[in-house]
Amino acid sequence: MEIYGDTASGNCQKIRLLADYLGLHYTWVPVDITKGQTRTADYLAKFPQGQVPAIAFDDGRCLAQSNAIMRYLARGSRLLPDDAWAQAKIDEWLFWEQYSHEPYIAVCRFQMLYQGRPKEAREAWRVERGERAIDLMENQLVDREWLATGAFTIADIALVAYSRLAHEGGFDLSGRPGVTAWISRCENALGIRRASAVCS
Amino acid sequence: MEIYGDTASGNCQKIRLLADYLGLHYTWVPVDITKGQTRTADYLAKFPQGQVPAIAFDDGRCLAQSNAIMRYLARGSRLLPDDAWAQAKIDEWLFWEQYSHEPYIAVCRFQMLYQGRPKEAREAWRVERGERAIDLMENQLVDREWLATGAFTIADIALVAYSRLAHEGGFDLSGRPGVTAWISRCENALGIRRASAVCS
Repeated sequence: MEIYGDTASGNCQKIRLLADYLGLHYTWVPVDITKGQTRTADYLAKFPQGQVPAIAFDDGRCLAQSNAIMRYLARGSRLLPDDAWAQAKIDEWLFWEQYSHEPYIAVCRFQMLYQGRPKEAREAWRVERGERAIDLMENQLVDREWLATGAFTIADIALVAYSRLAHEGGFDLSGRPGVTAWISRCENALGIRRASAVCS
Repeated sequence: MEIYGDTASGNCQKIRLLADYLGLHYTWVPVDITKGQTRTADYLAKFPQGQVPAIAFDDGRCLAQSNAIMRYLARGSRLLPDDAWAQAKIDEWLFWEQYSHEPYIAVCRFQMLYQGRPKEAREAWRVERGERAIDLMENQLVDREWLATGAFTIADIALVAYSRLAHEGGFDLSGRPGVTAWISRCENALGIRRASAVCS
């Protein structure tokens, strides 16, 4: 399996974290989105949506969209239980992540990290919605260990990917003990170092 | 089952179209998002994400996020085949819809229809990305009948909900024969009238 991705992208990190957790064999194919490498004819022939991450299997099958890929790779594992209701609650978070979290937390980070925008110049409406997304997670995580079910699932991986990097988008998690404790639990489960240590 | 929704919202229409197609019994509970009815304590106790559509079962279980709800309700039907790869390709479109289609097509429509913004005052970046989303669908639908698989699935319902109303957001589909023919196929499959006729 080939994973096409940008190592700095949280959406791409989801797939690497998941694949490593599951012990899958893969080749990482670096794609630089800032150089238009997702817009070439070759790339679009494989992945018409022109985005990363994406995966290609040896038999030629191709799949894009981070959360669709996670759902496919995790099937049959404890990260995506067979129970239909557990899957529904996981899906609820996966779709919320793409609509109500990533466009704010990740895009602010993209603007600061990739485009060099100062924290103060972030778009106010994105900051407000990003803060609201983190508050919502804090409310959920005050009295529960994991987001979607009683166990660690792909919903946690989907949300932790950018949540642990939120400071790079100018978001301060220090007043959110539920979220920060959950990030640590996720990092422990995934066997990875604290993002703040990695990035300092 | 109760469906909480706003009849004018494409995301909510997805659930009604699907439930009617599947012949499910439900009570429609009208929610007016413009009056803050998704932000009340009662609503947030049921649906912490504070959005429509959402469903509540008689046993108290609650679920939000249009595409998560569709995935749950459609399981076991032809609209969501058991085959894992078919589901992956459906998921690819469901996540693309929420990230790369709805924020442009639906939000432009919201600004015009709910907020009274003139077509000319739409945000240029949203218009550009909306046009790009429709172009991508056109490219896909030039030589295939349905988006994700060889048959009508919840991916088509997810995408057609706002695509058939795109003109209300100022998008002109007349130069996209693939998309317009597919919209007609979807409307026929769902047994509903043309949106342009409904809205005129």
